[in-house]
Amino acid sequence: MGFRLDHIGLVVENIKEFAETLYALGLKPGTEQVPNPLQKVSASFVNVIDGQDVYIELLEPTDSYSPIINFLKKEGGGLHHLCFEVDDIEETSAKLVHKGFQMVSPPEDCAAYDENLKLECKNVTRIAFFLISKKILIELIEKGK
Amino acid sequence: MGFRLDHIGLVVENIKEFAETLYALGLKPGTEQVPNPLQKVSASFVNVIDGQDVYIELLEPTDSYSPIINFLKKEGGGLHHLCFEVDDIEETSAKLVHKGFQMVSPPEDCAAYDENLKLECKNVTRIAFFLISKKILIELIEKGK
Repeated sequence: MGFRLDHIGLVVENIKEFAETLYALGLKPGTEQVPNPLQKVSASFVNVIDGQDVYIELLEPTDSYSPIINFLKKEGGGLHHLCFEVDDIEETSAKLVHKGFQMVSPPEDCAAYDENLKLECKNVTRIAFFLISKKILIELIEKGK
Repeated sequence: MGFRLDHIGLVVENIKEFAETLYALGLKPGTEQVPNPLQKVSASFVNVIDGQDVYIELLEPTDSYSPIINFLKKEGGGLHHLCFEVDDIEETSAKLVHKGFQMVSPPEDCAAYDENLKLECKNVTRIAFFLISKKILIELIEKGK
């Protein structure tokens, strides 16, 4: 399979409002807003185009303990992370650690087993986060075979 | 044609160093580093995957008058803009203006006629920039027919 861009994550104040802007640009509606009580975010998916197999993930904090609240309050939100799908998340993670990058969260099974989140985790078995520069957060996913 | 994601723009301190990180992740090398003396940036393109027809643009300021220098110095660089290709840049721009978004630069012919930049402007006739939230900068391009 190799390597692909899965999605671009944006942190916004109001998902519904921001999605409307993206639709005005020409993006097609993806899935509905799904709350993630574990991570204290609401997430909604906006398609880019089918042929590119990539989407925009809109994230909105649900309360003041959300891990994205600081990014919204201090930085004003915006482009938050890039998610790449890799064949072997352990191998890619080891490479990044070897290069000295900060592992924000180690490869682990997708924790979002909430009923509402089945969709996000469909076929995703492993997920990890890394900072590959002072400000560039990337998510790696390895989908279940 | 419709609508597509063309590229993701990242501002980094050192293109060569950062590109190496992306190659370690699995991205394939795109074009070489091309300086843009007009905009005072160096730009280099890193492919994502061919099948997705989308790439990562790495930008590095060439001097202290570069328009991206503040983003690097104050914000530490990072995810800078998303570029979408649209069918009619005037129509999309009018929509965004009507919605009240800040037009950072109006649709204009791609100014990069420098010999080194032929590649970036290949088939691109019109280009514009908008802020569609406090922190989300988007570039629109309409390619020549």
